[in-house]
Amino acid sequence: MSLGWKWFTEYQTPYSAHMHGIREILYSEKTDFQHIDVFDTYEYGRMLVLDGKVQSTVKDEYFYHESLVHPVMLAHPEPRRVLIIGGGEGGTLREVLRHGVKKAVMVDIDRKVVESSKKYIPELSAGAFDDGRAEVIIGDGREYVRRGGERFDVIIMDVTDPLEEGPGQLLYTEEFYAAARNMLHKGGTIVTQATSTYYSVDCFAKIFRTVRKVFGEGRAGGYHTFVPAYDSMWGFIYGTDGADPKDMSRDQLEAAVKDRGITGLRYYGPDMHACLFTLPKEVTDSLEGDGSVATDARPTFMPI
Amino acid sequence: MSLGWKWFTEYQTPYSAHMHGIREILYSEKTDFQHIDVFDTYEYGRMLVLDGKVQSTVKDEYFYHESLVHPVMLAHPEPRRVLIIGGGEGGTLREVLRHGVKKAVMVDIDRKVVESSKKYIPELSAGAFDDGRAEVIIGDGREYVRRGGERFDVIIMDVTDPLEEGPGQLLYTEEFYAAARNMLHKGGTIVTQATSTYYSVDCFAKIFRTVRKVFGEGRAGGYHTFVPAYDSMWGFIYGTDGADPKDMSRDQLEAAVKDRGITGLRYYGPDMHACLFTLPKEVTDSLEGDGSVATDARPTFMPI
Amino acid sequence: MSLGWKWFTEYQTPYSAHMHGIREILYSEKTDFQHIDVFDTYEYGRMLVLDGKVQSTVKDEYFYHESLVHPVMLAHPEPRRVLIIGGGEGGTLREVLRHGVKKAVMVDIDRKVVESSKKYIPELSAGAFDDGRAEVIIGDGREYVRRGGERFDVIIMDVTDPLEEGPGQLLYTEEFYAAARNMLHKGGTIVTQATSTYYSVDCFAKIFRTVRKVFGEGRAGGYHTFVPAYDSMWGFIYGTDGADPKDMSRDQLEAAVKDRGITGLRYYGPDMHACLFTLPKEVTDSLEGDGSVATDARPTFMPI
Amino acid sequence: MSLGWKWFTEYQTPYSAHMHGIREILYSEKTDFQHIDVFDTYEYGRMLVLDGKVQSTVKDEYFYHESLVHPVMLAHPEPRRVLIIGGGEGGTLREVLRHGVKKAVMVDIDRKVVESSKKYIPELSAGAFDDGRAEVIIGDGREYVRRGGERFDVIIMDVTDPLEEGPGQLLYTEEFYAAARNMLHKGGTIVTQATSTYYSVDCFAKIFRTVRKVFGEGRAGGYHTFVPAYDSMWGFIYGTDGADPKDMSRDQLEAAVKDRGITGLRYYGPDMHACLFTLPKEVTDSLEGDGSVATDARPTFMPI
Repeated sequence: MSLGWKWFTEYQTPYSAHMHGIREILYSEKTDFQHIDVFDTYEYGRMLVLDGKVQSTVKDEYFYHESLVHPVMLAHPEPRRVLIIGGGEGGTLREVLRHGVKKAVMVDIDRKVVESSKKYIPELSAGAFDDGRAEVIIGDGREYVRRGGERFDVIIMDVTDPLEEGPGQLLYTEEFYAAARNMLHKGGTIVTQATSTYYSVDCFAKIFRTVRKVFGEGRAGGYHTFVPAYDSMWGFIYGTDGADPKDMSRDQLEAAVKDRGITGLRYYGPDMHACLFTLPKEVTDSLEGDGSVATDARPTFMPI
Repeated sequence: MSLGWKWFTEYQTPYSAHMHGIREILYSEKTDFQHIDVFDTYEYGRMLVLDGKVQSTVKDEYFYHESLVHPVMLAHPEPRRVLIIGGGEGGTLREVLRHGVKKAVMVDIDRKVVESSKKYIPELSAGAFDDGRAEVIIGDGREYVRRGGERFDVIIMDVTDPLEEGPGQLLYTEEFYAAARNMLHKGGTIVTQATSTYYSVDCFAKIFRTVRKVFGEGRAGGYHTFVPAYDSMWGFIYGTDGADPKDMSRDQLEAAVKDRGITGLRYYGPDMHACLFTLPKEVTDSLEGDGSVATDARPTFMPI
Repeated sequence: MSLGWKWFTEYQTPYSAHMHGIREILYSEKTDFQHIDVFDTYEYGRMLVLDGKVQSTVKDEYFYHESLVHPVMLAHPEPRRVLIIGGGEGGTLREVLRHGVKKAVMVDIDRKVVESSKKYIPELSAGAFDDGRAEVIIGDGREYVRRGGERFDVIIMDVTDPLEEGPGQLLYTEEFYAAARNMLHKGGTIVTQATSTYYSVDCFAKIFRTVRKVFGEGRAGGYHTFVPAYDSMWGFIYGTDGADPKDMSRDQLEAAVKDRGITGLRYYGPDMHACLFTLPKEVTDSLEGDGSVATDARPTFMPI
Repeated sequence: MSLGWKWFTEYQTPYSAHMHGIREILYSEKTDFQHIDVFDTYEYGRMLVLDGKVQSTVKDEYFYHESLVHPVMLAHPEPRRVLIIGGGEGGTLREVLRHGVKKAVMVDIDRKVVESSKKYIPELSAGAFDDGRAEVIIGDGREYVRRGGERFDVIIMDVTDPLEEGPGQLLYTEEFYAAARNMLHKGGTIVTQATSTYYSVDCFAKIFRTVRKVFGEGRAGGYHTFVPAYDSMWGFIYGTDGADPKDMSRDQLEAAVKDRGITGLRYYGPDMHACLFTLPKEVTDSLEGDGSVATDARPTFMPI
């Protein structure tokens, strides 16, 4: 066996990390917004990395993208117009388009994430960018939401983690969620990726409290799913003025999946749905924490 | 921040590994059976490592031990006598004793695992070794089972992974499970840890087929749980001549927990139970594999 | 301090390696001949890596290039025509041209090494490729030498290590050196990089014996120099039909340097010369080894 | 090949490190003074590590110990009484005793370094602790020197690097060297290890200037030697009121070695001597630096 000599090391904390051996470096650039790397790894195949954090891998991306998109989309009775903030690699757009939407707008700040993903990991978008219903806007998602204008049934936040030195932190604040809520049609829902429920449960909890403050008691919730390349259960927080995804029964989900003609789900499904919403005691015990919410002045951060 | 200089690196594959920074090395010895290390890690606290594989950590051990023990114990109407093979650190024994058993026999091959765990990570056994109902035998579990003699209601296999160069492989074979079944009282159950359902799903599936061959169609099953320090969902396989743990309802479990006076569960519980048994499609699709079973002549192995 | 997440790890042995944190990946490609990587490392600046082995770094390249080129060039009374095999990054050519040569031919097998070095680490060639006296041939150095034709005063082998799976091994054999000697003018000299005198002293010794067999007793020698990025003393072997570089006095060297107008030497110089040729006892004790020489049928290898 | 799972990583800088695979951990303890680890490494055999820095390895310790001890000892006409500060593993004492001294006093602050080295790496002291001429004092070398009392011909500083958070820094100051000079007999010499001449040349230079300030212009000097496990050339600084080691001729050294009956030198010797004192231009250019010296109030530090 030959020893790998190129490694990508993702730290969960300064003393805990996942090492990925790299077969080939396909793309690497420092853009105006972040470092982008596309690696072909031995274990996970092609992998998109932003500022040292795994975003998506060919091998396991469906754990994440299916779990981010389907619970809220299926709970909405008729999601015609969907807004995706971030999501540059196209996996979220791909899943959204399976729900018979009329239009999906994706706003990503970094053209080079979109382009490098299309070129080097086309499996992620799988043609979604060529779908006539998709509109891709290169721009600042925060600014797009602040300006308002169009309205959507579902907003999906597929953005980078709220790192202390990164730009993502202002996409997890009370002000941001309030502006986003204003873009929702009646009965609409917003969902965001919300970091690890194990390594950064306090951050997950704070995002929950922030969304709840904007949408109101009983109108926000959290769930999580295992994502292999993240070494962890990965959390999602939603706020809704419509049906709560948590309350969807197996039969309702089955019917919605059938109705929309969705086939070939690989991880998420009507059976798995309830498990995503079953948070372990230590997570639910953490939810109220110190009661604080994230604001533009005092955002939330992941520890690393 | 000072840079950690001692690292324990656990490989899932030759090109994917988890690095753990070590604060202190508490114990390290090569015994007649294996390398034992007890590290105080920055992220997981005290950690027992055998032959380079994490066994238990202070911080997250309950994910594993609760999931290994409680599903089969709660499904058994009256587990009076329990046999644990392996389990040297005492966490499995600790959980078993909460079920009102009359006797729990633990057979571990390596006295030094038991002693070093007691000394350096006493939280794992939490006094279980001093319980009058516990009997610890230092000896070869395979030989103990082969000889037969005593009979048990539940047998719990808390042993090291079936590594190609390790001794564990012969504790996962048809011959072994047949001998173990012979030690069960009527209606008894055996459960074994069964490696990752992500990184080594073929190994998990082969253990399932092997146990099923011994217990018969419909009398074996698998489930899994997230274990943080294993970076993965971790699998368990059981075979039973009694009630199938999978079929236990929330109410039945609630009643059993109450009846036995079990309190303070941290991860597993009547709510979580069904999730453990909800395997994703890619795992269930892998179960039949090539149809082979593990035998003494041709055991199963983890890839690394 | 932010933690580096991209690392290049160069193994000296399977259990000893140097980790280099990478600031930027400038170029990475698998060519027909090898993997080429150009990294901008935190500690060594821009670095050319071939098949996982550091070749040259901006920060320390002069230790190697000055030591490879100047001892034999200064010992030759009038090196008008010089052949370089390998040397794609241009550092060897750069140093050769300082000796008032009429012509320097460089034969490197991989056009992409030459081009990527010129583009990403221009400091290495420092304009040498534009010098009218330089001729760059993209081709197989072994074939070039086998065919013969032109004759040279000095031949410099600046090629990759003789790795078991690499193409370099046949550039260190008796047959190759015999053909190379046939290309030398009367009184000519050949010098080759010859791996570490610490980590692979047996390989260094075998190259010495092989060159000695071709040039004759007393007409070959070895020396070494510290190269920081190689973590080691690095060896060179020469064979000559002219003056032995080892015998050059400080005054002779001083005169030659002055005569050729060489200024700005950074590591090598008339004072340092004798040190390069002072091999420690454990190296000289290793030179005869098992007496074997490297042949096309049985080449020599580095351990990793 | 099995993958190593225990690694010791020594950082030269936050982005450059040497990884050593560990076969066995023989001893590991946090004492009142420092972390001590004794590892059996695959590449270097048994290795003493203090606070994450390699001190000595079985395989390559002679590079360091011979170079630290012999140049100044041979330059002194009759070194009867020698003081070693630090040196707990005993290698320096071992080499000192070969010079026909009457008495060698070793003062190490940490009893556990002495004891663990004796127990786990007895090759380092090789019986020196049992020599009737050796006196081992467990105590603070700085305090020992401050108190004064006995006088010595040679003082050898074999202490840990001047790390910002470590206790070693106050053993490299003007005040310390002044006190040490007061303990020297007429014509005496002090020598200290002085960190890397490559990775921390500014620190090396400052130690030089500090010793020179105490001993006077022309009465201090520096030299260096390759030490494999340090990945670098390693520096030493001396100050003397007697003969300058740098001026010793090959013949004088040869005679002294013969006279004292020293045999079996492995790296250092009369031939190598001059090379140790031949510093490359970039080192000599760095010596004057900003002109500052290290004082108790403003000590010098290695970068990491």
